[in-house]
Amino acid sequence: MWKPSERASHWLERVKHFMREHITPFEAEYQQWNRKTNHHENWQSWQIHPHVAELKQQAKAEGLWNFFLPDETFGKGLSTSAYAHLAEQMGRSFLAPEIFNCNAPDTGNMEVLHYFGSDKQKKKWLVPLLEGRIRSVFAMTEPAVASSDATNMETRIVADGDDVVIDGCKWWTTGLGHPEAQVAIVMGLSDPEAPRHERHSMVLVPLDTPGVTIERMLPVFSEYDAPYGHGQVRFDQVRVPKENVIQALGAGFAIAQGRLGPGRVHHCMRALGAAELALELLIQRSQERIAFGQPLLQLGDNGSRIARHRMAIDQARLYTLHTAALIDEAGARGAASEIAGIKVVVPNVLQAVVDDAIQIHGGAGLSNDHPLTGLFALARALRLADGPDEVHEATVLRQELRKYTGGAV
Amino acid sequence: MWKPSERASHWLERVKHFMREHITPFEAEYQQWNRKTNHHENWQSWQIHPHVAELKQQAKAEGLWNFFLPDETFGKGLSTSAYAHLAEQMGRSFLAPEIFNCNAPDTGNMEVLHYFGSDKQKKKWLVPLLEGRIRSVFAMTEPAVASSDATNMETRIVADGDDVVIDGCKWWTTGLGHPEAQVAIVMGLSDPEAPRHERHSMVLVPLDTPGVTIERMLPVFSEYDAPYGHGQVRFDQVRVPKENVIQALGAGFAIAQGRLGPGRVHHCMRALGAAELALELLIQRSQERIAFGQPLLQLGDNGSRIARHRMAIDQARLYTLHTAALIDEAGARGAASEIAGIKVVVPNVLQAVVDDAIQIHGGAGLSNDHPLTGLFALARALRLADGPDEVHEATVLRQELRKYTGGAV
Amino acid sequence: MWKPSERASHWLERVKHFMREHITPFEAEYQQWNRKTNHHENWQSWQIHPHVAELKQQAKAEGLWNFFLPDETFGKGLSTSAYAHLAEQMGRSFLAPEIFNCNAPDTGNMEVLHYFGSDKQKKKWLVPLLEGRIRSVFAMTEPAVASSDATNMETRIVADGDDVVIDGCKWWTTGLGHPEAQVAIVMGLSDPEAPRHERHSMVLVPLDTPGVTIERMLPVFSEYDAPYGHGQVRFDQVRVPKENVIQALGAGFAIAQGRLGPGRVHHCMRALGAAELALELLIQRSQERIAFGQPLLQLGDNGSRIARHRMAIDQARLYTLHTAALIDEAGARGAASEIAGIKVVVPNVLQAVVDDAIQIHGGAGLSNDHPLTGLFALARALRLADGPDEVHEATVLRQELRKYTGGAV
Amino acid sequence: MWKPSERASHWLERVKHFMREHITPFEAEYQQWNRKTNHHENWQSWQIHPHVAELKQQAKAEGLWNFFLPDETFGKGLSTSAYAHLAEQMGRSFLAPEIFNCNAPDTGNMEVLHYFGSDKQKKKWLVPLLEGRIRSVFAMTEPAVASSDATNMETRIVADGDDVVIDGCKWWTTGLGHPEAQVAIVMGLSDPEAPRHERHSMVLVPLDTPGVTIERMLPVFSEYDAPYGHGQVRFDQVRVPKENVIQALGAGFAIAQGRLGPGRVHHCMRALGAAELALELLIQRSQERIAFGQPLLQLGDNGSRIARHRMAIDQARLYTLHTAALIDEAGARGAASEIAGIKVVVPNVLQAVVDDAIQIHGGAGLSNDHPLTGLFALARALRLADGPDEVHEATVLRQELRKYTGGAV
Repeated sequence: MWKPSERASHWLERVKHFMREHITPFEAEYQQWNRKTNHHENWQSWQIHPHVAELKQQAKAEGLWNFFLPDETFGKGLSTSAYAHLAEQMGRSFLAPEIFNCNAPDTGNMEVLHYFGSDKQKKKWLVPLLEGRIRSVFAMTEPAVASSDATNMETRIVADGDDVVIDGCKWWTTGLGHPEAQVAIVMGLSDPEAPRHERHSMVLVPLDTPGVTIERMLPVFSEYDAPYGHGQVRFDQVRVPKENVIQALGAGFAIAQGRLGPGRVHHCMRALGAAELALELLIQRSQERIAFGQPLLQLGDNGSRIARHRMAIDQARLYTLHTAALIDEAGARGAASEIAGIKVVVPNVLQAVVDDAIQIHGGAGLSNDHPLTGLFALARALRLADGPDEVHEATVLRQELRKYTGGAV
Repeated sequence: MWKPSERASHWLERVKHFMREHITPFEAEYQQWNRKTNHHENWQSWQIHPHVAELKQQAKAEGLWNFFLPDETFGKGLSTSAYAHLAEQMGRSFLAPEIFNCNAPDTGNMEVLHYFGSDKQKKKWLVPLLEGRIRSVFAMTEPAVASSDATNMETRIVADGDDVVIDGCKWWTTGLGHPEAQVAIVMGLSDPEAPRHERHSMVLVPLDTPGVTIERMLPVFSEYDAPYGHGQVRFDQVRVPKENVIQALGAGFAIAQGRLGPGRVHHCMRALGAAELALELLIQRSQERIAFGQPLLQLGDNGSRIARHRMAIDQARLYTLHTAALIDEAGARGAASEIAGIKVVVPNVLQAVVDDAIQIHGGAGLSNDHPLTGLFALARALRLADGPDEVHEATVLRQELRKYTGGAV
Repeated sequence: MWKPSERASHWLERVKHFMREHITPFEAEYQQWNRKTNHHENWQSWQIHPHVAELKQQAKAEGLWNFFLPDETFGKGLSTSAYAHLAEQMGRSFLAPEIFNCNAPDTGNMEVLHYFGSDKQKKKWLVPLLEGRIRSVFAMTEPAVASSDATNMETRIVADGDDVVIDGCKWWTTGLGHPEAQVAIVMGLSDPEAPRHERHSMVLVPLDTPGVTIERMLPVFSEYDAPYGHGQVRFDQVRVPKENVIQALGAGFAIAQGRLGPGRVHHCMRALGAAELALELLIQRSQERIAFGQPLLQLGDNGSRIARHRMAIDQARLYTLHTAALIDEAGARGAASEIAGIKVVVPNVLQAVVDDAIQIHGGAGLSNDHPLTGLFALARALRLADGPDEVHEATVLRQELRKYTGGAV
Repeated sequence: MWKPSERASHWLERVKHFMREHITPFEAEYQQWNRKTNHHENWQSWQIHPHVAELKQQAKAEGLWNFFLPDETFGKGLSTSAYAHLAEQMGRSFLAPEIFNCNAPDTGNMEVLHYFGSDKQKKKWLVPLLEGRIRSVFAMTEPAVASSDATNMETRIVADGDDVVIDGCKWWTTGLGHPEAQVAIVMGLSDPEAPRHERHSMVLVPLDTPGVTIERMLPVFSEYDAPYGHGQVRFDQVRVPKENVIQALGAGFAIAQGRLGPGRVHHCMRALGAAELALELLIQRSQERIAFGQPLLQLGDNGSRIARHRMAIDQARLYTLHTAALIDEAGARGAASEIAGIKVVVPNVLQAVVDDAIQIHGGAGLSNDHPLTGLFALARALRLADGPDEVHEATVLRQELRKYTGGAV
């Protein structure tokens, strides 16, 4: 568990090689191009750098593709634990996950379709996603209610003859601004009277369905994260056939639960890759920059901080790998405390490392000359995305108390 | 000291009233207009909202003007302690400091000219600044060296006949993108052989002098802070008459020291105003937003955090007011530990409050629907501007050890 | 406010002088004697070093006596703010407060008697206390209930003819083991049906009253704090005349409130004196001790920590002095947030400084060769005494929310 | 790695069962007896509770003995990883390690003799230690120098004919007060001119050798840890035969290095057992104690803290188990960063949990009615024992920088 399996090592080496040869050398040019081309909020005119498609093609041709899917046929047959190491590696680049077709939210959506989709749904949506021809979004968070409590969700999904009709507003729908985004998995309230975890459903909604209006993209620390974006979308009497419902009406929470564990591990491992990158930048700067006749490394408590970040990152990684191993062994249910725990710990570790990396870069760290504010925004957003720290701490507490009282808090 | 003097109270009430009546109601519209008009990095086309000039005119007409200057004639005769309370109030708005002609870096520049400028310099630059007709910048930080150690500065100021010639590159020159910015106080190395604190000089350089090239504006967390901006500017054989030197060649550090104390107090009090604003937003959200059947205030440790922020802000304010009182009584020299201390404490308090305020706002806190990421960028930048935390901690340490060993560390 | 008044300065200098000449030189010998003589839990045989009485006599003769009492006749007419500086100075010694007759809990008890006692009570108890001839205790905390919620108190005080009868058990009754302790102020429940803050009463109970049984002394980190001690005492049908009730039955809470503010300030200022002492020990050790060829001061983040302790102590002191000034101006009611706030902040600052001082002393810091574990026990106990941190944070929160909602939480 | 192997599980269950049946029920009585009998600093009259020998006999008879030694014959053939789980379990009791003959410093001393001792040394000292008939101590730390830098050591070990002669003073020699302590492994400087890591030697010194004077026992937070004790011992021209030198003169550091890794893992796992115990006490109290009408668990941030302790303990355990696995695989050399890292992380986690557990117990937590101050003293001492946090952070830093510069700092 504490080191990659042979199979994982094999792919890890290949991914590292591909990144070193093809992605890292392109990254600076890409960022510059992207900033020049897409640095505005008019998502309708966002473009994709042409070399991205070429890189994806090449990665696919080399078999570096769909690692995330445990399935032997469509993915690489990697367990959550095995894939975790690859996710960390990809997390060192803003670009890499997409190149290997391992980017959120498509990965989660593909998992949902793979495990829960009908044959028809698979054919129509899963196949092109697995081939990297289209992109998808996941519409869950709503502006009007505290999404930390998922049962607050107000978007309605109402059966009407052979259709379901969707009404509501979602935001923070990641990837919605992407030119290739074609379909949304929308989660909403289908039966307010049902038992608490049978009230919600997931429906596939093509983005060109009448009544779907993308209202705006939302910035994170003033960045629109183009060409992906985080969108606000209104569903106004949107009608899709019932066959677009995943599994059945009322199955939304059950599906969400199944999707949860591995996705958290992926997110956290990518974040740890980002943390390693930030720590490298911190250390390099601390060695190169001179003040008062010494490298910054020698001044104040800069050295102690590096040591503490190393200890924090190593612990957070082991925690995440341990969680992955628990999931592989017994499913998400047996890892409830850990799946919540890593979601609190890892983004906070990342934020702390990046904050210090910014500090040691001085003014330069605040600008776009370094990737640090981007990494900070990532960390800060991760502390909220998929539930704020506080909700996950409450889960860890609840699991802990279960040892004493049978779970009643 | 712990409460405003009668004189300060008088002006504080008038400033509060003006802000409530004229600035706060305009703030949202202004932000929206500014975002729409100036949200790009082409500073050459940045514009100023026309109502800003009207508000300045009105404030000036009401005598709400130049509070920062202790001088009875040109300012209001307020001590550092007295003005501190006004600075806190203005800090609750991104716009207010300019409306009352109390915005950095003009305030510091005006102080420099008031205390150290020649009559000619005063007439040419101080008068229009005091009248709010032009704006100025302060060019000190350099991209190539660690500015935390000011003696690293490499920009040269070389006497040549009746002129001085300036060569070098500066960045993080705040306000450089402003349409009305007309003059820079440039700090540079005039005599590398002189004793350590007599090597540097300050020179007034009109921005239209041949050889001055504004190369770009630098973003802070992707925001350009238009229409002010933080600029990178190159001085290439820039020639100005010797009479533009402030005081004399070699006097740069002495002037900088004199400028230091009150400026820090102003910055810190404005930051505390911002912290109070962030805490208010945090508390309001925690009371309004409902999850799991309760206001967020009742969940997790949200309540405890509010209490801790209150205790931290109150302490930081007392520390700053105490510093102001020390400066008023005995000058900056007698408050070396405190002037450094508040520069560490206050921005960190602000950052912590804003970080929590973002957290309780969820995704909304990351977007521009709330002023929180702007306040975060302000806090984060303040931890670096005018020296990083670490440099000021070293000063506090040095002052502390002086009690034991006579200062040798 | 931020520096002692002239009157306070006068006494401060005299107290410093007395401590330097008479107490500090005696302290090591005293500690050694005390450890040898009293280091056991049989409080019945605890003794007082004979020189203590001599020092008290001398201090009294020099007029260095009863500073704590604002009264001009019996005390020195010092305000809470003025006395605060003396309390800090005394806090640098475990012995000094008693020498100047300014030791808890006698100070609080004398205040209660001075403000609320009958003439008879004053004559019998206040006079000998002011003269330092006897000592007193305050019995409030109970073992069976959470004392953080004072309304939990279960000890009964029941009127019976001309007497009141007391039944119950108290612990953490400080000073109960002292050979000169003669009387307790006991707080208990007199009318469970009365409005919430009129249910409790305070009664004077001579310790030799039948039914009073001192059961044991309680150690704090294995130290019995001899010859004072923290006792557990049982009241079994203890009968005292009604004239021993302070003010009236039901007045307990009102009296406790009045006693609260200044007492907190005294405690906190003494703790800050202790923190300054610990910081001095930390710095001295960091300069003297050599490892890897350098003084410890130069290693790791030891320097940064010193700076941070300085900033924390200075802020905590200003917070406490500010609280004292508020109390002097408007009474405890107007300083509810601050009185609670300093009770959280100051003991935590002390604990952090002492913890670091122990660390830099290595193993020696854990032993009795230095006063550090004693200071640590003091800090740790202060975080609980007179209400745990959490209760005071809740008060700060409640006061904060009052600004928004009129106080309903 | 993240869960015990089958072999480890087998022994873990048996150890748990023995502790539950025989040790836990005896613990309170033992503590009380020990406090009554041994609570003084005259180590010469410390006694051992007679039931301790019986329990050891019984454990030995059941084969629950010497788990720590990887050797198949003398120990149980358990790897460091496997034993780690047992160490955690034993760490829940102050008594258990001795009962199973797994108590420090004997474990480390036995390892040294097992791996590096001569046949004669083994016969004379290792055999009775393995049989639990005698006890041993390890004399390394010195009062006069900073032991954080082991090369500071001043005790001399000088060859003289067939003997070596030892001169110097050691302290914090754990177990020196124990009635059965018979031999010390003494580390000292044998050749100040040799290369830095060949200057020191280890010598076996029977405690009854002329010239060995136990000067005193040192308290930790006023507890003497009887009947073990931490002693200060003087070696005054102490003469032992050369055959008492372990391996050879100059081999001291090499032996110490070999002894290091597993010992750290044992210490840390025991500390994690203690942390789990403290967390249990914290949670139980938070559920039972009522204030303001609710269990303490519901008040303030008590719940959040429990969640954070769970996350911290789980991460620290994984970090320690990972370190154990690295040692098992590649020896201590390949785990230098981790061996240092766990030494920083684990004691701090323990201290934080215990501090909060004390807090929630109120005054009771400070007394000896609960084991909490004892656990606190353990945690606090562990942050210094075997090198302070700061030294280990420096090691982590050094290892980290090695990735960049080949190790030069």
